[in-house]
Amino acid sequence: MAQVKLEVEGMSCQHCVQAVEGALAEIGASGKVNLEGKSVDISYDESKLDVVKLTEAIEEQGYDVISAGA
Amino acid sequence: MAQVKLEVEGMSCQHCVQAVEGALAEIGASGKVNLEGKSVDISYDESKLDVVKLTEAIEEQGYDVISAGA
Repeated sequence: MAQVKLEVEGMSCQHCVQAVEGALAEIGASGKVNLEGKSVDISYDESKLDVVKLTEAIEEQGYDVISAGA
Repeated sequence: MAQVKLEVEGMSCQHCVQAVEGALAEIGASGKVNLEGKSVDISYDESKLDVVKLTEAIEEQGYDVISAGA
């Protein structure tokens, strides 16, 4: 499993946490939102997913992915 | 129909708007959230509802109702 931390803008409440973590679960990734840190720690199978797909899943929920880090 | 503006803390995003307006609709009231104003303008049938019932519906969604105004 690969790990990535995405910086995400616009997540403000527990509904946002559910939206982002749920969207990641739907594509088979496991995400943990840090509201204060404005970030999402994600574990994913790199044979099936990549950072672009993770980003798309989050942005489809209406949030902006700013950057990716380790 | 009676009108009241409730001051509500904790509403931060469109999910919160849906939660609050939806909860009011469920009890037969019509609410319009102003996120920036941290308030909800509500129309309701005063023969069936009162400010306490409106407040309860909003607080059940996890928000704090601070005050009521005209």
